[in-house]
Amino acid sequence: MTLPTRAELEAVATDAGRLALTHFRMVAAERKADRTLVTAADRAVEELLVARLSALLPDAGIVGEEGTARPGRAAEVVVIDPIDGTAAFVAGLPTWCVCIGILRGGEPVAGVVHLPAAGETYVAVDGRAWWNDGPLTALGPPVGEGDRFIVTHAKAHLRYRIAYRGKVRSLGSTAYHVALVARGVADAALVGRAHVWDLAAPGAVLSAVGGRYEYLRGGAVDLGTMLDGRRAAEDVVAGSAEALAALRAVVSPAS
Amino acid sequence: MTLPTRAELEAVATDAGRLALTHFRMVAAERKADRTLVTAADRAVEELLVARLSALLPDAGIVGEEGTARPGRAAEVVVIDPIDGTAAFVAGLPTWCVCIGILRGGEPVAGVVHLPAAGETYVAVDGRAWWNDGPLTALGPPVGEGDRFIVTHAKAHLRYRIAYRGKVRSLGSTAYHVALVARGVADAALVGRAHVWDLAAPGAVLSAVGGRYEYLRGGAVDLGTMLDGRRAAEDVVAGSAEALAALRAVVSPAS
Repeated sequence: MTLPTRAELEAVATDAGRLALTHFRMVAAERKADRTLVTAADRAVEELLVARLSALLPDAGIVGEEGTARPGRAAEVVVIDPIDGTAAFVAGLPTWCVCIGILRGGEPVAGVVHLPAAGETYVAVDGRAWWNDGPLTALGPPVGEGDRFIVTHAKAHLRYRIAYRGKVRSLGSTAYHVALVARGVADAALVGRAHVWDLAAPGAVLSAVGGRYEYLRGGAVDLGTMLDGRRAAEDVVAGSAEALAALRAVVSPAS
Repeated sequence: MTLPTRAELEAVATDAGRLALTHFRMVAAERKADRTLVTAADRAVEELLVARLSALLPDAGIVGEEGTARPGRAAEVVVIDPIDGTAAFVAGLPTWCVCIGILRGGEPVAGVVHLPAAGETYVAVDGRAWWNDGPLTALGPPVGEGDRFIVTHAKAHLRYRIAYRGKVRSLGSTAYHVALVARGVADAALVGRAHVWDLAAPGAVLSAVGGRYEYLRGGAVDLGTMLDGRRAAEDVVAGSAEALAALRAVVSPAS
């Protein structure tokens, strides 16, 4: 199967993001998370994505966070998360994103992470990656000082002691966290036991710049084994090999 | 002195935000924080704010993060932070904000927190507050479950053990954190030893909904004593009285 182009991926993600925005912040100052609201948005966006991607890639299987599990004839599987960071979406934060990833033999080979409320789009096709209008370049060594930061999932405080000397941010979306690592502004990401739809799209961007997923305790993450919807066996980390070694040196289990 | 109207505050903040956006994300995929870039943006925005606020409130003193310290005849002092969350700005995150607060006898009586890249504006005048188009209502009891979260500064992992059962987010801007508490989506904020320009503007929004600043170890925060630019004597927390009691129960010094 021929991969879609950068422009094709961006067009689908942008349309999906526009639809999601019609649901965003529609309940002003809602104090309690409204799961009905976000479920409606999630489903509508997944429906749009499935329709558009079926037309674009008729031979590929499609797996989606909202339950889509369409078998395909091609070796590639399209993995979608209509809104990654649903809690952020419900809270009105700008850090949620639309995710489309393409796996081939379990490896992410193309993907787009689109943040309509933040004005950011990360896209990768076949080993090249872009952020908005500019190309992303290979990851350098982690800097770990000054304004540098790592990103962690929002329950990391209950599970780990983190001795990283820089800043720790938690912004509300796994895919955005991984994208920030791929862009080179975050040193590494401590991801929870994520699903394949959180990891596939940004994984394509990450691998295009020389980064990777591993389990925090070591070992490669095989996204192909997670296509049935099971969570990662353990917490996942994202970054360059050097950054992951540095991350492991400053993260230990909470006693 | 008569306080400015909501529309006047929003107009100044929006124009300042528009100027800041012309500097935002202008260096693509910059791996190392470019302090020159952000200093230029900070200064240009502070200059605009001082000019506009001097015309609007000719009798008030003005104190700014970039060095402005204009004495005034009125009892009110305008406190500005052209870009709160400069590290977030440099990293291209959407969570930085323009802050204008007005103190009277050390109490924040009006303020605007404007996030141009996130599409959010919080504004308060004389005990009433709004988020974008909607009014904010008095804070209820903290929920502390499900998707609820607290916000912490980015070095909190080095200073505290946090046993909060919900999520912990760190989004890159003190004023945004306080605004999220005032909007009722975050239970409480653990702020670092902040400056008066980080606290004045969102403090007006927070107090309009019944929230307050205190030191984490107890005691009220007198913003009036910080007008010379000194940092808060200790770490500050923000929330309702109930939320602050709940926060103190789950935050302890790192051993």
